[in-house]
Amino acid sequence: MADLRPPEHQVAGHRSSEDNLGPLVDDAGLFYKPLQAGNRGERELAFYTAFSAHPAVPPRIRDAFFPCFHGTRLIPTAASPGEPYPHIVLEDILAGIAAPCVADIKIGACTWPPRAPEPYVAKCLAKDRETTSALLGFRVSGVRIAGHGGAVWLPERSELKGIDTAGVRRVLRRYVSSCGSDGTDCALAAAVYGGDGGVLAQLRELKAWFEEQTLFHFYSASILMGYDANAVSAPGGGVRVKLVDFAHVDEGEGVIDHNFLGGLCSLIKFIADIVAEASEMASSGP
Amino acid sequence: MADLRPPEHQVAGHRSSEDNLGPLVDDAGLFYKPLQAGNRGERELAFYTAFSAHPAVPPRIRDAFFPCFHGTRLIPTAASPGEPYPHIVLEDILAGIAAPCVADIKIGACTWPPRAPEPYVAKCLAKDRETTSALLGFRVSGVRIAGHGGAVWLPERSELKGIDTAGVRRVLRRYVSSCGSDGTDCALAAAVYGGDGGVLAQLRELKAWFEEQTLFHFYSASILMGYDANAVSAPGGGVRVKLVDFAHVDEGEGVIDHNFLGGLCSLIKFIADIVAEASEMASSGP
Repeated sequence: MADLRPPEHQVAGHRSSEDNLGPLVDDAGLFYKPLQAGNRGERELAFYTAFSAHPAVPPRIRDAFFPCFHGTRLIPTAASPGEPYPHIVLEDILAGIAAPCVADIKIGACTWPPRAPEPYVAKCLAKDRETTSALLGFRVSGVRIAGHGGAVWLPERSELKGIDTAGVRRVLRRYVSSCGSDGTDCALAAAVYGGDGGVLAQLRELKAWFEEQTLFHFYSASILMGYDANAVSAPGGGVRVKLVDFAHVDEGEGVIDHNFLGGLCSLIKFIADIVAEASEMASSGP
Repeated sequence: MADLRPPEHQVAGHRSSEDNLGPLVDDAGLFYKPLQAGNRGERELAFYTAFSAHPAVPPRIRDAFFPCFHGTRLIPTAASPGEPYPHIVLEDILAGIAAPCVADIKIGACTWPPRAPEPYVAKCLAKDRETTSALLGFRVSGVRIAGHGGAVWLPERSELKGIDTAGVRRVLRRYVSSCGSDGTDCALAAAVYGGDGGVLAQLRELKAWFEEQTLFHFYSASILMGYDANAVSAPGGGVRVKLVDFAHVDEGEGVIDHNFLGGLCSLIKFIADIVAEASEMASSGP
């Protein structure tokens, strides 16, 4: 356990410190997520337990789009001295990435389950309307962009909270721009968003599943996109698209997750627009 | 104007009477919708005006899925004596149907535009949560089913308001069942929902447009499905799928209508399930 440390690439959620519980990673490629307070941790654990064994989940979907689940472990932490704290053990989906570029995008116009209690609904609804969730069907919860020269852009959460539609478009362009271009050249759009193993192809595969699956409704879950700025041109580019954060997953009860699906389609359109634009720029360039 | 009369097939909205303004139809196949009070009528008229001339709307989509717009007309009505009232003049999308089976399905988990004023939001949100809108992404606002023997099933609106997921499934099955079967045989599912010109194929074509179009956001609009119970087996079956009710349409501003699209995908899944089930029943039947 000596090699446990806070993940370098964390862009949303609580960070681990002496005073705060937060996620940890190890050298074996595992990610330790402290059980969240209230019933959130229990619910997230219940989701992982149900999901990882569910016979109706296609193995390809589970493997491609969800972190692998390895049960729970009690871990001594500085924030809970003398009393080991329960953690959900998951695959570290960004393990092995030297220069991680990560975006955490919370999907869905509505982040509260329909049967949630009233004060929680009011709080979430206010946030969904203040951020881009209600308007776009998603919001950027966190982003970390590592450039080739070692420069890192890691905007404050307060900065991300205030962005509008144009701001979201800028972040999604900057995510695939070379760092010398002040974040606008979209030089990596074809490699990261486009192509067979790119973000767009992966999001479309996920969408096809969401058009059919009626098992789970993923309120307040995020899509985490990641790639290695040092290995973009490698085969496959190491582009990863995973769902994370399952503290508010409901049973689907035979109904599709129209809220997640709608937001996912909106994100797909934003990214497809950037790919198309970058492809036009490339073909009309010098 | 002597042939103006309230439409036989109206299943949602205000009905025309001596005291109330309501839609009228004529023998020429036109539908006259009184301008709604407040700014709703103006907004609906503004939508039809913009939409009918918009160069980015594919003609096939406009012709297939929207009532043709014929401007406005002042009409003397019993409810506004001495003062002709302005009506939006539209194609009567159910003209020529002898035994109309009609369902009005309000699409979208959220029926209020994001920038709507607070009391309106609260009112709509409460209704979206009381009905199936929030959970299913749509609700059945009205239904009228004419059987072969002349029997008509026209449930009260209060009855429809209270239905849950199972109730929605029952209504959508009854909509394509023969009347002798107490509404459960789905004998017409293949003819009405399935096939090349059926409801499902039409909804899927509409969906493809909603995955791309960023012109309009259709809050609180409905999909009206209609067919003629006396002519189901005719080629094409006269199955119609149209969007109606545009008093709360917003400009899309480059973003897809994820709220409508999500609800549409949910409705598609409900109907696809009924088609699949009916097809299984047929192939395993006597």
